[in-house]
Amino acid sequence: MKYPKALEDLIECFSKLPSVGRKSAERFALHCLMHLDEADVIDFSNAFIGINTDINICPECGNICEGDSCIICKDNSRNHRQILVVEGIKDLFTIEKINNYNGIYHVLNGAISFSKGITINDLNINSLVEKVKNNEADEIILATNATLEGETTARYIKELLNEYNVKITRIAHGLPVGGDLSYADEMTVLKAFEGRREY
Amino acid sequence: MKYPKALEDLIECFSKLPSVGRKSAERFALHCLMHLDEADVIDFSNAFIGINTDINICPECGNICEGDSCIICKDNSRNHRQILVVEGIKDLFTIEKINNYNGIYHVLNGAISFSKGITINDLNINSLVEKVKNNEADEIILATNATLEGETTARYIKELLNEYNVKITRIAHGLPVGGDLSYADEMTVLKAFEGRREY
Repeated sequence: MKYPKALEDLIECFSKLPSVGRKSAERFALHCLMHLDEADVIDFSNAFIGINTDINICPECGNICEGDSCIICKDNSRNHRQILVVEGIKDLFTIEKINNYNGIYHVLNGAISFSKGITINDLNINSLVEKVKNNEADEIILATNATLEGETTARYIKELLNEYNVKITRIAHGLPVGGDLSYADEMTVLKAFEGRREY
Repeated sequence: MKYPKALEDLIECFSKLPSVGRKSAERFALHCLMHLDEADVIDFSNAFIGINTDINICPECGNICEGDSCIICKDNSRNHRQILVVEGIKDLFTIEKINNYNGIYHVLNGAISFSKGITINDLNINSLVEKVKNNEADEIILATNATLEGETTARYIKELLNEYNVKITRIAHGLPVGGDLSYADEMTVLKAFEGRREY
């Protein structure tokens, strides 16, 4: 026996979400069917239409925006000559939460990955290179993840921008605040050791 | 900084799914925004409309159906005097997968739970009692889960139907096939011991 087609369609949609397998997708779809009221289901449907129609990608930095450029790029009180490079939009929001950064961003929308076949050409990088070429930036802060992909991407961008007159920095990696040295993995301890400063 | 409203709406919808918290909902919504193409997003939207308009609940048994009664209740080759009682639709599909049951079903759409305040009045039970009263059933197979809620519900239904001339059975609980005795929890071992049969 198969599920009705309408339900099967919804299960298939849910299966496209990250780390959602067939079983979870079934659970989500059945929950929507049995436990959400009609208005909630309509809201869900409209929310998808909403992201298609109401959200754009800022051509300046790759952030999401409602108009034609994002509120960070529009904000003249921010330092437009300091550019923090992140892999994804979620990372941008994470940095914004610390309420301590006043420059602008550049969202790569991914990272170089040999295993997934993602090269520099698949990333949003050209507008950043252009800005540096045109001497529109003083500092590029590389805040890609501390993973193989993130490190590779950071190094690649450094190579790419090295010939221009711009300061390139990398965010610090080390022990997380509140972290216990004995529980930290070796790479983190190594990074913490290498990055030690005078106290 | 906040997410654009359209994205925030979608995050809120995803948060209503079972065991999806704020962080996962953000991840799902950003994935839909950044990694699904426009057609996929429209499919997702339409799938929700679909479950609202194309799927009904069978008034006979509580199963989901596309017309006015479900394909199991409509099937005259099945034994309509043998009724298997499950908590949810997923359980019904699980039993159907074994391809060995030829009776019909009754979906309670939940189980009695004191902690969640779910009583027998919140369950789909009346049509089952009616069928037994009218002598339309020979056997009621209680296949609620082997949890406190499932056991309570099974006992309650047994009490409710005891006065009528109907055979009431409960599915067997014991060691799962391929299961290792030494890894089984005590309740399962107890149930397996109690339910032993001549060999």
